[in-house]
Amino acid sequence: MKAYIEQHKERFYQELFSLLRIPSISAKPEHKPDMTRCAQRLTELLLEAGADKAEICPTAGNPVVYGEKILDPKARTVLVYGHYDVQPPEPLEKWRTDPFDPVIADDPATGEPAIWARGANDDKGQLFMHIKAFEYLLRSGKLRHNVKFIFEGEEEIGSPSLPAWMKEHKGLLKADVCLVSDTTMISDKVPSINCGMRGLSYLEVKVTGPNKDLHSGHYGGAVANPIQVLCEMIASLIDADGRVTVPGFYDQVVELSAQDRALLARAPYDEREYKAFLGVDALRGEKGYSSLERTGIRPCLDVCGIWGGYTGAGAKTVLPSEAHAKISMRLVPNQRSAEITPLFAEHFKHIAPACVKVEVKECEGGDGFLIPISSEAYKAASRAMAEVYGVEPVPSRGGGSIAVLAEMQQILGIDPLLMGFGLERDTIHSPNESYLLRQFFAGMESIALFFGFYK
Amino acid sequence: MKAYIEQHKERFYQELFSLLRIPSISAKPEHKPDMTRCAQRLTELLLEAGADKAEICPTAGNPVVYGEKILDPKARTVLVYGHYDVQPPEPLEKWRTDPFDPVIADDPATGEPAIWARGANDDKGQLFMHIKAFEYLLRSGKLRHNVKFIFEGEEEIGSPSLPAWMKEHKGLLKADVCLVSDTTMISDKVPSINCGMRGLSYLEVKVTGPNKDLHSGHYGGAVANPIQVLCEMIASLIDADGRVTVPGFYDQVVELSAQDRALLARAPYDEREYKAFLGVDALRGEKGYSSLERTGIRPCLDVCGIWGGYTGAGAKTVLPSEAHAKISMRLVPNQRSAEITPLFAEHFKHIAPACVKVEVKECEGGDGFLIPISSEAYKAASRAMAEVYGVEPVPSRGGGSIAVLAEMQQILGIDPLLMGFGLERDTIHSPNESYLLRQFFAGMESIALFFGFYK
Repeated sequence: MKAYIEQHKERFYQELFSLLRIPSISAKPEHKPDMTRCAQRLTELLLEAGADKAEICPTAGNPVVYGEKILDPKARTVLVYGHYDVQPPEPLEKWRTDPFDPVIADDPATGEPAIWARGANDDKGQLFMHIKAFEYLLRSGKLRHNVKFIFEGEEEIGSPSLPAWMKEHKGLLKADVCLVSDTTMISDKVPSINCGMRGLSYLEVKVTGPNKDLHSGHYGGAVANPIQVLCEMIASLIDADGRVTVPGFYDQVVELSAQDRALLARAPYDEREYKAFLGVDALRGEKGYSSLERTGIRPCLDVCGIWGGYTGAGAKTVLPSEAHAKISMRLVPNQRSAEITPLFAEHFKHIAPACVKVEVKECEGGDGFLIPISSEAYKAASRAMAEVYGVEPVPSRGGGSIAVLAEMQQILGIDPLLMGFGLERDTIHSPNESYLLRQFFAGMESIALFFGFYK
Repeated sequence: MKAYIEQHKERFYQELFSLLRIPSISAKPEHKPDMTRCAQRLTELLLEAGADKAEICPTAGNPVVYGEKILDPKARTVLVYGHYDVQPPEPLEKWRTDPFDPVIADDPATGEPAIWARGANDDKGQLFMHIKAFEYLLRSGKLRHNVKFIFEGEEEIGSPSLPAWMKEHKGLLKADVCLVSDTTMISDKVPSINCGMRGLSYLEVKVTGPNKDLHSGHYGGAVANPIQVLCEMIASLIDADGRVTVPGFYDQVVELSAQDRALLARAPYDEREYKAFLGVDALRGEKGYSSLERTGIRPCLDVCGIWGGYTGAGAKTVLPSEAHAKISMRLVPNQRSAEITPLFAEHFKHIAPACVKVEVKECEGGDGFLIPISSEAYKAASRAMAEVYGVEPVPSRGGGSIAVLAEMQQILGIDPLLMGFGLERDTIHSPNESYLLRQFFAGMESIALFFGFYK
């Protein structure tokens, strides 16, 4: 596919940029029209690439884009999953370029050319590789499989509508494997295939003290400050050993055998480099586990956001009425989000002192999953990536969550295969998201080869 | 003065409203032009009321308004202090009316008419009473004192420029007492005169973890979350007995005798009513002290604001790079802000774990002060308020801070006298600030009578 890429890459950029320019931020209701625009643009791209059909399918939330090319009903079918929604771009002031005005520019750190935009990697850039690999296979007469595409618009908010839509379209979605590029590799020198992801429970909490903002001079010292109380409650959620204190949190966690842990420990990890990349002097996590284990096989709790009181410029004194936080927990097999979320909510209310009132709102949830590395699809992907990278990829465990893939396993009975081509440097979900051209093209080649090896 | 008020009150409203309409928010640099407009309007009002001169005096920050009426160089001189800057109005969505479009409307809770606007009480409404009492005394031929006015535009940000300006104008500001209406009374049934206020140390802290926002799935569990760390640090600042844990914090605090505490305990306080007014089920504060003591004679620490990570709508997952908080400490005699601020900064840096970096920025500071109740000015004020309210006012200790008054004592050698007519219900510094017309007029009458009784 190398030659095809060389010949068509200017067109590829323009097509991808047309997607990246649409601010399809699923977390913000005001972007509803952008979701439809983005879905519309995807159907055009699928049809131009050679799909028999491509349509916008309404759901309870943002639409799903479905496309297909059926060559032979008896041939194997590959279902490609991706998502066209993106994370909010905030904090905007940290972007060097407009998040929705994509550019190709050299990475200031390495000098390597990359695409810079929100969604450049996650997931518009990665799903686009599949459309182009499909286009190449079809036009070059190499396609032997049926291909189906589903691109959803709610992955970044936990895919609330896709499961119901999949249940209604089980027949349509019949396939042998679900190919997904929405994850990272360990490094560009150590390609990896993700064979497990963490689940997620995401909640928003509100702590209310007095029924109005108070003058902190008149009341300070006599009335509980809800920010102080929230801080105390959050501080108590993780103990000195780095363990989450919610009762029952670890009850279902699968403890890996020493052998399994040894296997995972073979993945390359240089703590000095890791710390230097993050700019931290010390790491912190659950006692008794390595960093790779802490993000791969162990659950954790993170405060994703906190706010309360006066946050503007200057020195306003106030004893505020409310304090808020967004709290996420990454879950591992066999923790069920549907069990952990109420455990957390109950615990958080339980630890609230009498001087405040607490509200807990469930925002998002999904289970983790594991993928067998003995499958034919895994083997084909491994062979493809070995050819492109010159190194056999290692199986890895991803710390992130694509909640809907666990549901897909349950609803459709299809195992996902996670061929992700992102790198740590891409800083997805953060300012200055980008995608190295090198990985963008290596991804396309790997996907095209996968179809060749997957019998 | 009752009849004069009745005759002129419509004009009074319009004059005060012209001040209230100017958003003179000192904490926000973009309001700089509003500060000058407000100062300009004050000079007009002083001259219209009968001042010999009134001028805008530049300082390193917002201008000071100085006005005077010198009747007789040998007569006693009363210096009136007030401030024309206001607190930011946020959160805007909680205001029932526009904070800078003043209206007279009945209090929804009590049906009593009040002026509703940011600054209606603090301090435009209260300083305006002095201008009108002066106008009345002058026009009715009852003025026997020299009167000087200083209105500053930086009280809400800690009066950074006024001390230097006072040092340069010691001669101009010579006076026997400094009359201030910028505080509250215990209740409209229990008038009080404030004979002590707390000092203030105000700092902003920043906790930095990784050098960029991270995907909380990829890194969560292995990298310290700066929000979590900030929460732990804040939680540790107050112990289980409600005491501030900064080493040395209480070293200089003057412990009151049992007799003094008994005297203060005579102020009326109904815990049930207090809790009902605040809408809380339980109070919290330093062990061993009453609510009045906790806000009057004991220092405290409050988080005035906190922010970090994603605070928008929806469920964005992120392990943020930074977390921030604004922290105020109310100080009592003999705690010096200049000593407490560095003690806090040092302690906060000291308790930071190795996985984060901490910055501490000093924002504002000032000392508390005490006023002798044996002075002639106090006695005159007490007699005036007793006549207006029909009850002898009690001496009280205010929990708030007017940092510049301690400096005024030191620089000019003038004791302040705090005749404040605010009430708890006015919710200054909060949404829906208002000032009861009844208190507005009672304040003018009390001030006019004070001049009569002060020999």
